[in-house]
Amino acid sequence: MEDLRSNIAAFIEERDWDQFHSPKNLAMALSVEVAEIVEHFQWLTEEQTRNLPPEKLAEIREEIGDVMIYLTELAEKLGVDSVEAAKAKLVINSQKYPASLVKGKASKYTEYQ
Amino acid sequence: MEDLRSNIAAFIEERDWDQFHSPKNLAMALSVEVAEIVEHFQWLTEEQTRNLPPEKLAEIREEIGDVMIYLTELAEKLGVDSVEAAKAKLVINSQKYPASLVKGKASKYTEYQ
Amino acid sequence: MEDLRSNIAAFIEERDWDQFHSPKNLAMALSVEVAEIVEHFQWLTEEQTRNLPPEKLAEIREEIGDVMIYLTELAEKLGVDSVEAAKAKLVINSQKYPASLVKGKASKYTEYQ
Amino acid sequence: MEDLRSNIAAFIEERDWDQFHSPKNLAMALSVEVAEIVEHFQWLTEEQTRNLPPEKLAEIREEIGDVMIYLTELAEKLGVDSVEAAKAKLVINSQKYPASLVKGKASKYTEYQ
Repeated sequence: MEDLRSNIAAFIEERDWDQFHSPKNLAMALSVEVAEIVEHFQWLTEEQTRNLPPEKLAEIREEIGDVMIYLTELAEKLGVDSVEAAKAKLVINSQKYPASLVKGKASKYTEYQ
Repeated sequence: MEDLRSNIAAFIEERDWDQFHSPKNLAMALSVEVAEIVEHFQWLTEEQTRNLPPEKLAEIREEIGDVMIYLTELAEKLGVDSVEAAKAKLVINSQKYPASLVKGKASKYTEYQ
Repeated sequence: MEDLRSNIAAFIEERDWDQFHSPKNLAMALSVEVAEIVEHFQWLTEEQTRNLPPEKLAEIREEIGDVMIYLTELAEKLGVDSVEAAKAKLVINSQKYPASLVKGKASKYTEYQ
Repeated sequence: MEDLRSNIAAFIEERDWDQFHSPKNLAMALSVEVAEIVEHFQWLTEEQTRNLPPEKLAEIREEIGDVMIYLTELAEKLGVDSVEAAKAKLVINSQKYPASLVKGKASKYTEYQ
Protein backbone atom coordinates (compact mmCIF):
# COMPACT_ATOMS: atom_id res chain seq x y z
CA MET A 1 0.00 0.00 0.00
CA GLU A 2 2.82 2.44 0.84
CA ASP A 3 4.32 1.98 -2.64
CA LEU A 4 0.93 2.51 -4.24
CA ARG A 5 0.34 5.72 -2.27
CA SER A 6 3.67 7.18 -3.33
CA ASN A 7 3.25 6.07 -6.97
CA ILE A 8 -0.11 7.85 -7.08
CA ALA A 9 1.31 11.00 -5.49
CA ALA A 10 4.11 11.08 -8.09
CA PHE A 11 1.66 10.47 -10.95
CA ILE A 12 -0.50 13.42 -9.85
CA GLU A 13 2.40 15.73 -9.18
CA GLU A 14 4.08 15.11 -12.55
CA ARG A 15 0.82 16.09 -14.25
CA ASP A 16 -0.01 19.01 -11.94
CA TRP A 17 -3.46 17.50 -11.48
CA ASP A 18 -3.97 18.19 -7.79
CA GLN A 19 -5.89 21.33 -8.74
CA PHE A 20 -8.63 19.14 -10.33
CA HIS A 21 -8.56 16.45 -7.64
CA SER A 22 -10.83 17.90 -4.97
CA PRO A 23 -12.54 15.25 -2.82
CA LYS A 24 -15.78 16.12 -4.65
CA ASN A 25 -14.27 15.40 -8.06
CA LEU A 26 -12.45 12.28 -6.85
CA ALA A 27 -15.72 10.88 -5.49
CA MET A 28 -17.32 11.42 -8.91
CA ALA A 29 -14.38 9.74 -10.67
CA LEU A 30 -14.59 6.85 -8.20
CA SER A 31 -18.28 6.36 -9.01
CA VAL A 32 -17.54 6.39 -12.75
CA GLU A 33 -14.85 3.72 -12.42
CA VAL A 34 -17.12 1.51 -10.30
CA ALA A 35 -19.76 1.82 -13.04
CA GLU A 36 -17.21 0.40 -15.48
CA ILE A 37 -17.09 -2.75 -13.35
CA VAL A 38 -20.90 -2.83 -13.11
CA GLU A 39 -21.11 -2.51 -16.91
CA HIS A 40 -19.21 -5.79 -17.32
CA PHE A 41 -21.74 -7.59 -15.12
CA GLN A 42 -25.08 -5.97 -15.96
CA TRP A 43 -26.34 -8.57 -18.46
CA LEU A 44 -24.61 -11.60 -16.95
CA THR A 45 -26.24 -13.99 -14.50
CA GLU A 46 -24.75 -14.20 -11.02
CA GLU A 47 -23.44 -17.64 -11.98
CA GLN A 48 -21.68 -16.26 -15.06
CA THR A 49 -19.97 -13.61 -12.94
CA ARG A 50 -18.61 -16.40 -10.73
CA ASN A 51 -17.03 -18.03 -13.82
CA LEU A 52 -15.60 -15.29 -16.01
CA PRO A 53 -13.46 -16.07 -19.07
CA PRO A 54 -9.80 -14.91 -18.77
CA GLU A 55 -10.07 -12.01 -21.31
CA LYS A 56 -13.04 -10.56 -19.45
CA LEU A 57 -11.27 -10.99 -16.13
CA ALA A 58 -8.22 -9.13 -17.47
CA GLU A 59 -10.43 -6.16 -18.39
CA ILE A 60 -12.15 -6.16 -15.00
CA ARG A 61 -8.75 -6.34 -13.27
CA GLU A 62 -7.91 -3.00 -14.92
CA GLU A 63 -11.16 -1.45 -13.70
CA ILE A 64 -10.49 -2.72 -10.18
CA GLY A 65 -7.10 -1.04 -10.48
CA ASP A 66 -8.72 2.28 -11.38
CA VAL A 67 -11.21 2.05 -8.50
CA MET A 68 -8.38 1.27 -6.09
CA ILE A 69 -6.33 4.22 -7.39
CA TYR A 70 -9.14 6.74 -6.88
CA LEU A 71 -10.16 5.28 -3.53
CA THR A 72 -6.58 5.44 -2.27
CA GLU A 73 -6.14 8.99 -3.52
CA LEU A 74 -9.45 10.17 -2.04
CA ALA A 75 -8.65 8.60 1.33
CA GLU A 76 -5.15 10.11 1.35
CA LYS A 77 -6.54 13.54 0.53
CA LEU A 78 -8.91 13.30 3.49
CA GLY A 79 -6.18 12.03 5.82
CA VAL A 80 -7.89 8.64 6.09
CA ASP A 81 -6.01 5.31 6.06
CA SER A 82 -8.36 3.24 3.90
CA VAL A 83 -7.17 -0.11 5.26
CA GLU A 84 -7.61 0.99 8.87
CA ALA A 85 -11.00 2.53 8.03
CA ALA A 86 -12.10 -0.80 6.53
CA LYS A 87 -10.95 -2.76 9.58
CA ALA A 88 -12.75 -0.37 11.92
CA LYS A 89 -15.92 -0.48 9.78
CA LEU A 90 -15.86 -4.27 9.81
CA VAL A 91 -16.03 -4.17 13.61
CA ILE A 92 -19.04 -1.82 13.42
CA ASN A 93 -20.69 -4.05 10.80
CA SER A 94 -20.15 -7.09 13.03
CA GLN A 95 -22.19 -5.40 15.73
CA LYS A 96 -24.88 -4.19 13.34
CA TYR A 97 -25.28 -7.69 11.90
CA PRO A 98 -24.72 -10.23 14.68
CA ALA A 99 -23.96 -13.63 13.16
CA SER A 100 -26.53 -15.27 15.45
CA LEU A 101 -29.26 -13.10 13.93
CA VAL A 102 -28.38 -12.82 10.25
CA LYS A 103 -26.76 -16.15 9.45
CA GLY A 104 -27.77 -17.19 5.92
CA LYS A 105 -30.04 -14.14 5.48
CA ALA A 106 -29.48 -11.10 3.28
CA SER A 107 -31.80 -8.41 4.62
CA LYS A 108 -30.66 -4.92 5.38
CA TYR A 109 -29.73 -4.53 9.04
CA THR A 110 -32.62 -2.14 9.81
CA GLU A 111 -34.99 -5.00 9.11
CA TYR A 112 -33.55 -6.82 12.13
CA GLN A 113 -34.11 -4.04 14.60
CA MET B 1 -4.05 -5.66 3.71
CA GLU B 2 -3.54 -9.33 4.61
CA ASP B 3 -5.26 -8.78 7.95
CA LEU B 4 -8.14 -7.01 6.25
CA ARG B 5 -8.58 -9.83 3.73
CA SER B 6 -8.75 -12.46 6.46
CA ASN B 7 -11.06 -10.34 8.65
CA ILE B 8 -13.46 -10.00 5.72
CA ALA B 9 -13.32 -13.73 4.95
CA ALA B 10 -14.16 -14.51 8.60
CA PHE B 11 -16.99 -11.96 8.66
CA ILE B 12 -18.59 -13.52 5.56
CA GLU B 13 -18.09 -17.11 6.68
CA GLU B 14 -19.57 -16.54 10.15
CA ARG B 15 -22.71 -15.17 8.48
CA ASP B 16 -22.82 -17.73 5.66
CA TRP B 17 -23.15 -14.84 3.22
CA ASP B 18 -20.96 -16.16 0.43
CA GLN B 19 -24.12 -17.44 -1.28
CA PHE B 20 -25.29 -13.81 -1.77
CA HIS B 21 -21.85 -12.40 -2.60
CA SER B 22 -21.54 -13.14 -6.32
CA PRO B 23 -19.24 -10.70 -8.16
CA LYS B 24 -22.41 -9.22 -9.73
CA ASN B 25 -23.96 -8.48 -6.34
CA LEU B 26 -20.69 -7.23 -4.85
CA ALA B 27 -20.29 -4.78 -7.74
CA MET B 28 -23.79 -3.44 -7.02
CA ALA B 29 -23.01 -3.11 -3.29
CA LEU B 30 -19.75 -1.35 -4.15
CA SER B 31 -21.63 1.18 -6.28
CA VAL B 32 -24.13 1.80 -3.47
CA GLU B 33 -21.38 2.47 -0.93
CA VAL B 34 -19.59 4.85 -3.30
CA ALA B 35 -22.89 6.73 -3.71
CA GLU B 36 -22.94 7.22 0.06
CA ILE B 37 -19.65 9.12 -0.26
CA VAL B 38 -21.01 11.10 -3.23
CA GLU B 39 -24.10 11.99 -1.18
CA HIS B 40 -21.91 13.77 1.39
CA PHE B 41 -20.38 15.93 -1.34
CA GLN B 42 -23.25 16.61 -3.76
CA TRP B 43 -24.28 20.04 -2.50
CA LEU B 44 -20.86 21.18 -1.27
CA THR B 45 -18.45 23.27 -3.32
CA GLU B 46 -15.12 21.72 -4.25
CA GLU B 47 -13.50 24.06 -1.75
CA GLN B 48 -15.81 22.89 1.05
CA THR B 49 -14.89 19.28 0.32
CA ARG B 50 -11.22 20.22 0.77
CA ASN B 51 -12.05 21.57 4.27
CA LEU B 52 -14.50 19.22 5.93
CA PRO B 53 -15.48 19.57 9.58
CA PRO B 54 -14.37 16.66 11.81
CA GLU B 55 -17.89 15.16 12.35
CA LYS B 56 -18.49 15.03 8.59
CA LEU B 57 -15.05 13.53 8.05
CA ALA B 58 -15.76 10.82 10.61
CA GLU B 59 -18.89 9.82 8.69
CA ILE B 60 -17.06 9.77 5.38
CA ARG B 61 -14.29 7.66 6.91
CA GLU B 62 -16.91 5.00 7.62
CA GLU B 63 -18.15 5.10 4.02
CA ILE B 64 -14.57 4.80 2.74
CA GLY B 65 -14.26 1.77 5.00
CA ASP B 66 -17.33 0.16 3.42
CA VAL B 67 -16.09 0.86 -0.12
CA MET B 68 -12.70 -0.66 0.77
CA ILE B 69 -14.37 -3.75 2.26
CA TYR B 70 -16.46 -4.46 -0.84
CA LEU B 71 -13.62 -3.67 -3.23
CA THR B 72 -11.28 -6.01 -1.35
CA GLU B 73 -13.88 -8.75 -1.24
CA LEU B 74 -14.75 -8.40 -4.94
CA ALA B 75 -11.07 -8.47 -5.94
CA GLU B 76 -10.40 -11.53 -3.75
CA LYS B 77 -13.39 -13.36 -5.23
CA LEU B 78 -12.02 -12.74 -8.74
CA GLY B 79 -8.49 -13.78 -7.75
CA VAL B 80 -7.23 -10.23 -8.26
CA ASP B 81 -4.76 -8.50 -5.94
CA SER B 82 -6.27 -5.01 -5.80
CA VAL B 83 -3.01 -3.29 -4.81
CA GLU B 84 -1.06 -4.95 -7.63
CA ALA B 85 -3.90 -4.20 -10.08
CA ALA B 86 -3.74 -0.52 -9.08
CA LYS B 87 0.04 -0.36 -9.53
CA ALA B 88 -0.21 -2.02 -12.95
CA LYS B 89 -3.03 0.32 -14.01
CA LEU B 90 -1.02 3.34 -12.93
CA VAL B 91 1.70 2.29 -15.39
CA ILE B 92 -0.91 2.01 -18.17
CA ASN B 93 -2.38 5.40 -17.21
CA SER B 94 1.09 6.97 -17.31
CA GLN B 95 1.38 5.92 -20.94
CA LYS B 96 -2.15 7.01 -21.82
CA TYR B 97 -1.58 10.45 -20.29
CA PRO B 98 2.07 11.45 -20.86
CA ALA B 99 3.00 14.24 -18.44
CA SER B 100 4.51 16.27 -21.29
CA LEU B 101 1.13 16.36 -23.01
CA VAL B 102 -1.42 16.67 -20.20
CA LYS B 103 0.40 18.74 -17.58
CA GLY B 104 -2.12 21.07 -15.92
CA LYS B 105 -4.97 19.91 -18.19
CA ALA B 106 -7.96 17.78 -17.25
CA SER B 107 -9.30 16.45 -20.56
CA LYS B 108 -10.05 12.81 -21.18
CA TYR B 109 -7.13 11.02 -22.81
CA THR B 110 -8.99 10.37 -26.08
CA GLU B 111 -9.04 14.09 -26.64
CA TYR B 112 -5.23 14.03 -26.87
CA GLN B 113 -5.00 11.38 -29.55
CA MET C 1 -44.52 15.91 -18.25
CA GLU C 2 -45.33 19.62 -18.56
CA ASP C 3 -46.99 19.60 -15.13
CA LEU C 4 -44.03 17.80 -13.64
CA ARG C 5 -41.57 20.32 -15.10
CA SER C 6 -43.49 23.26 -13.68
CA ASN C 7 -43.98 21.58 -10.29
CA ILE C 8 -40.22 21.03 -10.06
CA ALA C 9 -39.47 24.62 -11.07
CA ALA C 10 -41.82 25.91 -8.36
CA PHE C 11 -40.32 23.57 -5.74
CA ILE C 12 -36.79 24.82 -6.49
CA GLU C 13 -37.76 28.47 -6.66
CA GLU C 14 -39.67 28.43 -3.34
CA ARG C 15 -36.54 27.06 -1.67
CA ASP C 16 -34.06 29.27 -3.56
CA TRP C 17 -32.10 26.13 -4.39
CA ASP C 18 -31.10 26.96 -7.95
CA GLN C 19 -27.76 28.21 -6.62
CA PHE C 20 -26.90 24.63 -5.52
CA HIS C 21 -28.38 22.93 -8.58
CA SER C 22 -25.57 23.19 -11.11
CA PRO C 23 -25.62 20.40 -13.75
CA LYS C 24 -22.56 18.95 -11.97
CA ASN C 25 -24.38 18.71 -8.64
CA LEU C 26 -27.61 17.46 -10.21
CA ALA C 27 -25.70 14.65 -11.94
CA MET C 28 -24.26 13.64 -8.55
CA ALA C 29 -27.70 13.72 -6.94
CA LEU C 30 -29.10 11.66 -9.82
CA SER C 31 -26.43 9.01 -9.28
CA VAL C 32 -27.20 8.90 -5.54
CA GLU C 33 -30.92 8.38 -6.16
CA VAL C 34 -30.25 5.62 -8.69
CA ALA C 35 -28.05 3.91 -6.08
CA GLU C 36 -31.06 3.88 -3.75
CA ILE C 37 -32.89 1.76 -6.33
CA VAL C 38 -29.83 -0.47 -6.76
CA GLU C 39 -29.65 -0.91 -2.98
CA HIS C 40 -33.12 -2.51 -2.98
CA PHE C 41 -32.01 -5.08 -5.56
CA GLN C 42 -28.41 -5.85 -4.63
CA TRP C 43 -29.00 -9.06 -2.64
CA LEU C 44 -32.11 -10.23 -4.50
CA THR C 45 -32.05 -12.71 -7.37
CA GLU C 46 -33.21 -11.49 -10.76
CA GLU C 47 -36.31 -13.62 -10.29
CA GLN C 48 -37.09 -11.97 -6.94
CA THR C 49 -36.83 -8.52 -8.54
CA ARG C 50 -39.46 -9.63 -11.07
CA ASN C 51 -41.83 -10.49 -8.20
CA LEU C 52 -41.53 -7.82 -5.55
CA PRO C 53 -43.85 -7.67 -2.53
CA PRO C 54 -46.12 -4.57 -2.46
CA GLU C 55 -44.34 -2.80 0.48
CA LYS C 56 -40.99 -3.09 -1.30
CA LEU C 57 -42.54 -1.87 -4.55
CA ALA C 58 -44.00 1.16 -2.78
CA GLU C 59 -40.51 2.12 -1.55
CA ILE C 60 -38.97 1.64 -4.97
CA ARG C 61 -41.72 3.74 -6.54
CA GLU C 62 -40.56 6.64 -4.36
CA GLU C 63 -36.96 6.18 -5.48
CA ILE C 64 -38.07 6.09 -9.13
CA GLY C 65 -39.87 9.36 -8.41
CA ASP C 66 -36.67 10.95 -7.10
CA VAL C 67 -34.65 9.75 -10.09
CA MET C 68 -37.29 11.14 -12.45
CA ILE C 69 -37.29 14.49 -10.61
CA TYR C 70 -33.53 14.96 -10.87
CA LEU C 71 -33.37 13.70 -14.45
CA THR C 72 -36.13 16.11 -15.49
CA GLU C 73 -34.48 19.01 -13.70
CA LEU C 74 -31.03 18.25 -15.14
CA ALA C 75 -32.43 17.98 -18.67
CA GLU C 76 -34.39 21.23 -18.28
CA LYS C 77 -31.30 23.04 -16.99
CA LEU C 78 -29.38 21.91 -20.09
CA GLY C 79 -32.22 22.86 -22.44
CA VAL C 80 -32.80 19.19 -23.31
CA ASP C 81 -36.25 17.62 -23.71
CA SER C 82 -35.65 14.26 -21.99
CA VAL C 83 -38.51 12.49 -23.80
CA GLU C 84 -37.33 13.66 -27.22
CA ALA C 85 -33.72 12.80 -26.31
CA ALA C 86 -34.84 9.27 -25.41
CA LYS C 87 -36.75 8.82 -28.65
CA ALA C 88 -33.78 10.07 -30.69
CA LYS C 89 -31.39 7.79 -28.77
CA LEU C 90 -33.64 4.81 -29.36
CA VAL C 91 -33.25 5.38 -33.11
CA ILE C 92 -29.45 5.47 -32.71
CA ASN C 93 -29.53 2.32 -30.56
CA SER C 94 -31.64 0.54 -33.19
CA GLN C 95 -28.85 1.12 -35.70
CA LYS C 96 -26.08 0.16 -33.29
CA TYR C 97 -27.86 -3.09 -32.41
CA PRO C 98 -29.66 -4.38 -35.52
CA ALA C 99 -32.31 -6.89 -34.49
CA SER C 100 -31.05 -9.36 -37.13
CA LEU C 101 -27.65 -9.46 -35.43
CA VAL C 102 -28.40 -9.26 -31.70
CA LYS C 103 -31.70 -11.11 -31.35
CA GLY C 104 -31.65 -13.04 -28.07
CA LYS C 105 -28.06 -12.02 -27.29
CA ALA C 106 -26.86 -9.61 -24.62
CA SER C 107 -23.33 -8.60 -25.67
CA LYS C 108 -22.17 -5.04 -25.87
CA TYR C 109 -22.49 -3.65 -29.37
CA THR C 110 -18.74 -3.27 -29.87
CA GLU C 111 -18.49 -7.04 -29.75
CA TYR C 112 -20.55 -7.21 -32.93
CA GLN C 113 -18.38 -4.91 -35.00
CA MET D 1 -44.33 9.63 -22.92
CA GLU D 2 -46.83 7.12 -24.37
CA ASP D 3 -44.95 7.07 -27.68
CA LEU D 4 -41.68 6.56 -25.87
CA ARG D 5 -43.08 3.66 -23.86
CA SER D 6 -44.34 1.89 -26.95
CA ASN D 7 -41.11 2.56 -28.90
CA ILE D 8 -39.12 0.99 -26.08
CA ALA D 9 -41.43 -2.03 -25.89
CA ALA D 10 -41.04 -2.59 -29.65
CA PHE D 11 -37.24 -2.19 -29.45
CA ILE D 12 -37.01 -4.84 -26.73
CA GLU D 13 -39.42 -7.24 -28.35
CA GLU D 14 -37.71 -7.13 -31.76
CA ARG D 15 -34.45 -8.12 -30.04
CA ASP D 16 -35.99 -10.68 -27.66
CA TRP D 17 -34.17 -8.91 -24.84
CA ASP D 18 -36.85 -9.13 -22.17
CA GLN D 19 -35.12 -12.26 -20.81
CA PHE D 20 -32.10 -10.10 -19.84
CA HIS D 21 -34.12 -7.11 -18.63
CA SER D 22 -34.98 -8.06 -15.08
CA PRO D 23 -35.50 -5.05 -12.76
CA LYS D 24 -32.16 -5.94 -11.15
CA ASN D 25 -30.29 -5.75 -14.46
CA LEU D 26 -32.16 -2.62 -15.57
CA ALA D 27 -31.20 -0.86 -12.34
CA MET D 28 -27.55 -1.71 -13.02
CA ALA D 29 -27.80 -0.43 -16.60
CA LEU D 30 -29.47 2.74 -15.33
CA SER D 31 -26.58 3.36 -12.92
CA VAL D 32 -24.05 2.81 -15.73
CA GLU D 33 -25.78 5.34 -18.00
CA VAL D 34 -25.95 7.92 -15.21
CA ALA D 35 -22.20 7.44 -14.69
CA GLU D 36 -21.69 8.39 -18.33
CA ILE D 37 -23.28 11.76 -17.55
CA VAL D 38 -21.17 12.10 -14.40
CA GLU D 39 -18.04 11.33 -16.44
CA HIS D 40 -18.66 14.42 -18.59
CA PHE D 41 -18.77 16.63 -15.48
CA GLN D 42 -16.18 15.12 -13.13
CA TRP D 43 -13.28 17.46 -13.91
CA LEU D 44 -15.34 20.55 -14.78
CA THR D 45 -16.17 23.30 -12.33
CA GLU D 46 -19.83 23.86 -11.48
CA GLU D 47 -19.64 27.06 -13.51
CA GLN D 48 -18.33 25.22 -16.57
CA THR D 49 -21.21 22.73 -16.34
CA ARG D 50 -23.61 25.68 -16.46
CA ASN D 51 -22.00 26.82 -19.74
CA LEU D 52 -21.28 23.78 -21.85
CA PRO D 53 -20.09 24.05 -25.45
CA PRO D 54 -22.58 22.69 -28.05
CA GLU D 55 -20.58 19.55 -28.98
CA LYS D 56 -20.36 18.51 -25.35
CA LEU D 57 -24.05 19.22 -24.85
CA ALA D 58 -24.92 17.04 -27.84
CA GLU D 59 -23.05 14.12 -26.26
CA ILE D 60 -24.72 14.63 -22.89
CA ARG D 61 -28.12 14.79 -24.58
CA GLU D 62 -27.51 11.25 -25.83
CA GLU D 63 -26.62 10.06 -22.32
CA ILE D 64 -29.76 11.70 -20.93
CA GLY D 65 -31.67 9.81 -23.61
CA ASP D 66 -30.18 6.50 -22.44
CA VAL D 67 -30.97 7.24 -18.78
CA MET D 68 -34.54 8.12 -19.72
CA ILE D 69 -34.92 4.93 -21.75
CA TYR D 70 -33.79 2.66 -18.90
CA LEU D 71 -35.76 4.58 -16.28
CA THR D 72 -38.93 4.35 -18.38
CA GLU D 73 -38.40 0.65 -19.03
CA LEU D 74 -37.66 -0.12 -15.37
CA ALA D 75 -40.74 1.79 -14.21
CA GLU D 76 -42.95 0.07 -16.81
CA LYS D 77 -41.67 -3.34 -15.77
CA LEU D 78 -42.60 -2.59 -12.15
CA GLY D 79 -46.00 -1.21 -13.10
CA VAL D 80 -45.00 2.28 -12.02
CA ASP D 81 -45.88 5.46 -13.91
CA SER D 82 -42.62 7.39 -13.59
CA VAL D 83 -44.24 10.80 -14.15
CA GLU D 84 -46.92 10.17 -11.52
CA ALA D 85 -44.31 8.76 -9.14
CA ALA D 86 -42.24 11.94 -9.54
CA LYS D 87 -45.24 14.18 -8.89
CA ALA D 88 -46.19 12.20 -5.79
CA LYS D 89 -42.57 12.26 -4.52
CA LEU D 90 -42.39 16.00 -5.03
CA VAL D 91 -45.33 16.37 -2.61
CA ILE D 92 -43.51 14.21 -0.05
CA ASN D 93 -40.29 16.20 -0.55
CA SER D 94 -42.21 19.46 -0.02
CA GLN D 95 -43.22 18.22 3.41
CA LYS D 96 -39.75 16.90 4.27
CA TYR D 97 -38.16 20.23 3.30
CA PRO D 98 -40.56 23.04 4.21
CA ALA D 99 -39.61 26.19 2.30
CA SER D 100 -39.80 28.24 5.49
CA LEU D 101 -37.07 26.07 7.03
CA VAL D 102 -34.68 25.30 4.19
CA LYS D 103 -34.81 28.41 2.01
CA GLY D 104 -31.34 29.06 0.60
CA LYS D 105 -29.79 26.14 2.51
CA ALA D 106 -28.56 22.84 1.12
CA SER D 107 -28.43 20.48 4.10
CA LYS D 108 -29.95 17.05 4.09
CA TYR D 109 -33.45 17.06 5.58
CA THR D 110 -32.46 14.93 8.59
CA GLU D 111 -30.29 17.80 9.72
CA TYR D 112 -33.43 19.87 10.18
CA GLN D 113 -35.21 17.43 12.42
